[in-house]
Parts: sequence; structure tokens; C-alpha cells
Amino acid sequence: MSNSTAGKVIKCKAAVAWEAGKPLVIEEVEVAPPQKHEVRLKILFTALCHTDVYFWEAKGQNPLFPRIFGHEAGGIVESVGEGVTELQPGDHVLPVFTGECKECAHCKSEESNMCDLLRINTDRGTMLNDGQTRFSKDGKPIYHFVGTSTFSEYTVSHVGSVAKINPAAPLDKVCVLSCGICTGFGATVNVAKPKKGSSVAIFGLGAVGLAAAEGARVSGASRIIGVDLNSNRFEEAKKFGVNEFVNPKDHNKPVQEVIAEMTNGGVDRSVECTGSIQAMISAFECVHDGWGVAVLVGVPNKDDAFKTHPMNFLNERTLKGTFYGNYKPRTDLPCVVEKYMNKEMELDKFITHSVPFSEINKAFEYMLAGQGIRCIIRMEH
Amino acid sequence: MSNSTAGKVIKCKAAVAWEAGKPLVIEEVEVAPPQKHEVRLKILFTALCHTDVYFWEAKGQNPLFPRIFGHEAGGIVESVGEGVTELQPGDHVLPVFTGECKECAHCKSEESNMCDLLRINTDRGTMLNDGQTRFSKDGKPIYHFVGTSTFSEYTVSHVGSVAKINPAAPLDKVCVLSCGICTGFGATVNVAKPKKGSSVAIFGLGAVGLAAAEGARVSGASRIIGVDLNSNRFEEAKKFGVNEFVNPKDHNKPVQEVIAEMTNGGVDRSVECTGSIQAMISAFECVHDGWGVAVLVGVPNKDDAFKTHPMNFLNERTLKGTFYGNYKPRTDLPCVVEKYMNKEMELDKFITHSVPFSEINKAFEYMLAGQGIRCIIRMEH
Repeated sequence: MSNSTAGKVIKCKAAVAWEAGKPLVIEEVEVAPPQKHEVRLKILFTALCHTDVYFWEAKGQNPLFPRIFGHEAGGIVESVGEGVTELQPGDHVLPVFTGECKECAHCKSEESNMCDLLRINTDRGTMLNDGQTRFSKDGKPIYHFVGTSTFSEYTVSHVGSVAKINPAAPLDKVCVLSCGICTGFGATVNVAKPKKGSSVAIFGLGAVGLAAAEGARVSGASRIIGVDLNSNRFEEAKKFGVNEFVNPKDHNKPVQEVIAEMTNGGVDRSVECTGSIQAMISAFECVHDGWGVAVLVGVPNKDDAFKTHPMNFLNERTLKGTFYGNYKPRTDLPCVVEKYMNKEMELDKFITHSVPFSEINKAFEYMLAGQGIRCIIRMEH
Repeated sequence: MSNSTAGKVIKCKAAVAWEAGKPLVIEEVEVAPPQKHEVRLKILFTALCHTDVYFWEAKGQNPLFPRIFGHEAGGIVESVGEGVTELQPGDHVLPVFTGECKECAHCKSEESNMCDLLRINTDRGTMLNDGQTRFSKDGKPIYHFVGTSTFSEYTVSHVGSVAKINPAAPLDKVCVLSCGICTGFGATVNVAKPKKGSSVAIFGLGAVGLAAAEGARVSGASRIIGVDLNSNRFEEAKKFGVNEFVNPKDHNKPVQEVIAEMTNGGVDRSVECTGSIQAMISAFECVHDGWGVAVLVGVPNKDDAFKTHPMNFLNERTLKGTFYGNYKPRTDLPCVVEKYMNKEMELDKFITHSVPFSEINKAFEYMLAGQGIRCIIRMEH
């Protein structure tokens, strides 16, 4: 880290996605200096999340290539642009795919984290300040991804999308808090809020669902019921506190009925982490009348319709959705890092693989094969 | 009040519904003494609620006649049955259509009021203890209604369905707390919980909706938007704090869009008091993303389906249903009466008509004609 690079273009390695679904190519790219309200980050560790794969595959969405993906990462501020006062070179940070401007109605609300200015935008591939990219190769622009683009040794983000954290925190671990783990953990601890001794059903035992289970474990839930169509995930899920399992394929009745029978009328809380509309309906209908709360996390398809009998609400059930676990990136993420430092939550067990940056395509292979939970990519500057 | 009647059959006047939709007939009936966990009440004032009319019309439900309707009332305990320790003769009480046994999982939950033992049951016309009626005429049974049957000078209720209240409270006013007013008021103050200065949309400006508006007024909401298909209700609604009005018929777009435009993205809270499935969907979709909470109160039809795009949840909206405003009848109703006594809520403005018991059919006529809010029926012993 040195300020000798401040204000100058940095040449560095980045994993460029040239076209949909094709292996990334490590290229030497140019990273322009940060502009107004932007910071340039040296990325040390990044992880691969389903969302990267989803937009890299570009099935359905508008393809935007060439692009640098990556949004779960930890790094260090290299330099800051005009008007940036909250960060300075050397700060340890987590870039986040959604931001916190601290000035809009959402940021001013205690309840919302859906910043009007910096809310996730997967279609935009440029920076807000000038509508241009900071990445280029041979003078041709390379698009950004959700304001983070962490599959690069250096990247530029809006200051509102960067959380400053405790420099003692190991970036190779806490980098996974940038997205999936906070999404699931926060859905449980910030939104579902299970009480000690209660029952919680988790739909989907991928990284987000396991993080939701970790939230239930930390909250003292006594019954944590994992629901997944893939029974191979059950053994691993035990490490995250899941102590009962339901594979909907093993039953000839709706899974909400199976769960109601297991729990004398329904679970106290449920968290849906698959995005399947049928799982969303089941997750809602499996909570107990009188007090049950269901929380939706998984992102649905564009044409899905959530459908249930309104008496399911009238019988005093609650349905809520959440985005990034209701965490405000800049305000709350440093506290989550402290939770890890204080051993109030576990992160290491989410990290099942690690590869050097040069082998980033292996991380894609692991994910496509359904192997492991999180693969850390070491930048090795 | 005298214990000379305790243990004996009481002969008194009751308004009997002999068949569906036909005027009630004031008859001399016999009221048996209360059995185990029952109390016999002398009714002083009762009011007419839509639910009485709905089951009297018996369009769709299984008809159960002859029957004594009535479930919003105030009275005095005449005598108590075996095992009753919480009430004694002379206590001022409000009978309630749903109960609180204090022993089931729902009663033990802080969040639920949906007692397993005494939850509303509109199909049952007999008492729990022996499956018989306490009302008869010439030896033939007359059915009960929701455990209250207050269109009678004397009635018998399970002790768990009777709230003991401050004897200084005027029964001709607080009797309306037995049902509709608590249902609407509680939906706002206990479930929607609007903050001071916030915006609240109320769907349906009947008694329940106006009580929901009164809850918003008392909570300090600054914008209370009344939505009704009948603009004639708007003037009266001003007394309940409603200060903006929308008649969906006046607009050629969905009412949720109209409200979103009025409020820069949506209201902070909404309360649905009509039971129309379309209104339920509008009430949910008109709340602001990030923090909006919609509360369903109105009872839907059997075959209705609530349908919305799941992204409406994912964008951090909450949908909850409530029953009787989430009040536990015995625990909470005495406190609501105190609220009235302390002038923290208004009741008198809900009472627009009053008739002697002998003219009870007039109360039905007012309601069927949509005149007024509540008609008090004076028993005049």
C-alpha cells in the first residue's frame, strides 16, 4: 500500500468475463483513479457467490460484457476520490453490492436498508458519477458489476458501498460477510427474530440457508428444521445447528403439512432461502397460527405469483421479506465483523475451498458442481 | 341484582331469531343456571354488529335456528357456576365472542389471542360443558351464538369469554368494545403500530375501519387516508381523524398506485377492514417498500386467494393478519376500558343510534340501510 499510486491509473490483473458462460480470462487491465465519492480498493480476498454465476451465465437477463464480476470481498483502501472523508488509504474494508448513502428516506429510516441511491442494480455496468467505467483494456471499457467488481486486484467503488471494519479482522474470513452470509444470518437475527427455545424451519441449505441456520443457532432456537430437495446437504448442515431434516421428495403431502405435524401446528419461524415460489408458499404456510413469522430471502422469478388463502394471514401469521438481512452496509457491517471477532457467530465453517486468483475458474466449477459452500479466491499481489 | 335467582331458572325476555332473515321476536324464554366454568349475566346494553346480521341472514353458512344473536354487550354477573373464582355476582363485565382460557399454548404466548379452547366458533350453538343450550322456550332448546347471545335480558357464557371491567365505566358506551371497535383499534395500535407523524391508509370506513382510524389518530399519525367505495362515508370519517380520502371508483388505475403517488412511494402502514380480496391486495401493495406494514382485519370469503408478486415482500414489506385486534379478552379488555375512562380514546362518536329492546329490529334496519355506525339496544329490565 502506498500513495505513490494515488491519482494515477493502476495496471493490474483482473479476471475478465468476455462473454456469457465462458471461462474468465486473467488479463492485465487499467483501473482509473477514483472520482468524486469513490474509493479505489486493493482486493486481498474475494469469494464466489451464486449471483456472480447467475449473471455470468446471463440466461434471461440482458447480457453485459466484457464485465468484471465479484462482490464478496475484503480489501484495503488504496486511494480516495474528491469529497470522501469517511475512508482513507489503509483502511480495511468490505465492499458491498448495495449501498448506504445516509441521506435518502431509506437510509434515514431505522427499518430499511434499501438505499435509493445505491440499492443494488445489476443492469448498470458503470459508475454513478460520470456513467463511465473505471476499468479498461487497450482503451476499451470493461463493465462493472453491482458496484464492486472484486475479481480484480484493484477496483473502484462508491464510498457508500464500502464498509470500514476492524483492521484486526482476518480478511480471508470476514470477506464472506459482504453478501450471502449476512443475507441469511440477518434474515434470522434481524427479521425472523426467533426466541430462545423456539422452532425454526430453514428452506434451502445452501450458503444463505446455512447462514440463516447459524442465526437460529446463535439465537438459541432448540429445533432447527432444514428443508432441501437434496438430502446430500443434510450432513454438512448439522455443523450449522440444523438438527431435523425434511426432504419434500420423501413425502406425498405438502411440506408445510409435514412440518405442521412435526411441530404440533407449525414452527415459530421460517426462513426461505431458495427463491422457489412453491418453497415461499410452504415457508409461509408452515408457521404456527397466532404467532408464526415467515421471512422470504430467496429471489423469485420475474413472473412468479405468491398465492395463499387470506385466512392464513387472518389467523395471525406474519410474512416479511428481507434484503441483505436488513443490514445497512456501512452502519451495521462493522458490528457483524465484531460479532465474529467476539466468537458470537462462526464463519470459518462456511469456507470449504480456497484457490489462488490464477485458478478462479475452479471456484466456478465447484459451485456449478454443488461442491462446498464458499470458495475463497486469494489475490496474491 | 340479587342472589335470590342463583341456581334457579330465570324467565326473561329475549329476541329470538326463529328463521333466517325474518324479524326477531321478543319472547319469554327460560335461562338455565350456569354450569361448571360458566357465569350467568344480566345484560344491560347490547349493540348490533355486522356479524350478527351476517349469521342471521345465513346466506352460505349452515343455518342454526332458533337462535339468540348478539355479541357486543355490557352487563353484570348475576350468578356463577362451579369452579368460577375470578368473577362474582355484581361484577361489571363485557362478554366477548372469543375467549381466553389462560392455559393453552395461544393464551400462554405473549403474541397470540387465538385461544384453543374458546376461539370463536360460529357453528356451535351450545355450551362446551355439556353440549346443551341454556336457553329454552316451552322446553325446546334455543341455540347460542358465539358464546354470548346478548339479545336476551339474561345469558350464560363461559367464564373465559367474560372480561371484568371497572364498575365506574358506563356500560352503554363501553359495550361497543366487545367486538368491532377493539377489532379495528387494536389492529392499528397493537399490530400496525404507526409512528407519530406517519401515514396510514384505512380500507373500509365502517365501524371497524373508523376504529382503526381512531387508533391511527391516537397514535399521532399525521396522514390518515380513508379508502371506501361509498363517498357518503367520508364526511363522518373526519371525526375519526381521517384527513384524506380515496374512492377507488374515481380513478382509472389501481388504488395502490393512486396512494403511492399521493405518498411518494406508499404509506407507512395500512389496515384492511372490508374483507374484499381486492382491497386486501391493494392494502398490501400500497405500503412503502423498506418499512411498510399492512394489516388484514376483514374476513375474506371461503374461496378467495391472496395473490401478489413475491418481490413486493422481498422489497421489505410486511403483511400481517389480526383477530380481535390482537387483544386477549380477559387480560387486555379491562385496560382498553381504562383508556376510554382516561380519555385516551373516544367511543361516544361511534354510537349514532339507540333503541329500546322492544324495537331491536330497528337496529337491523339501520344497519341494512347503512345508516350510522353503532346502534345501542337498551335492555330496560
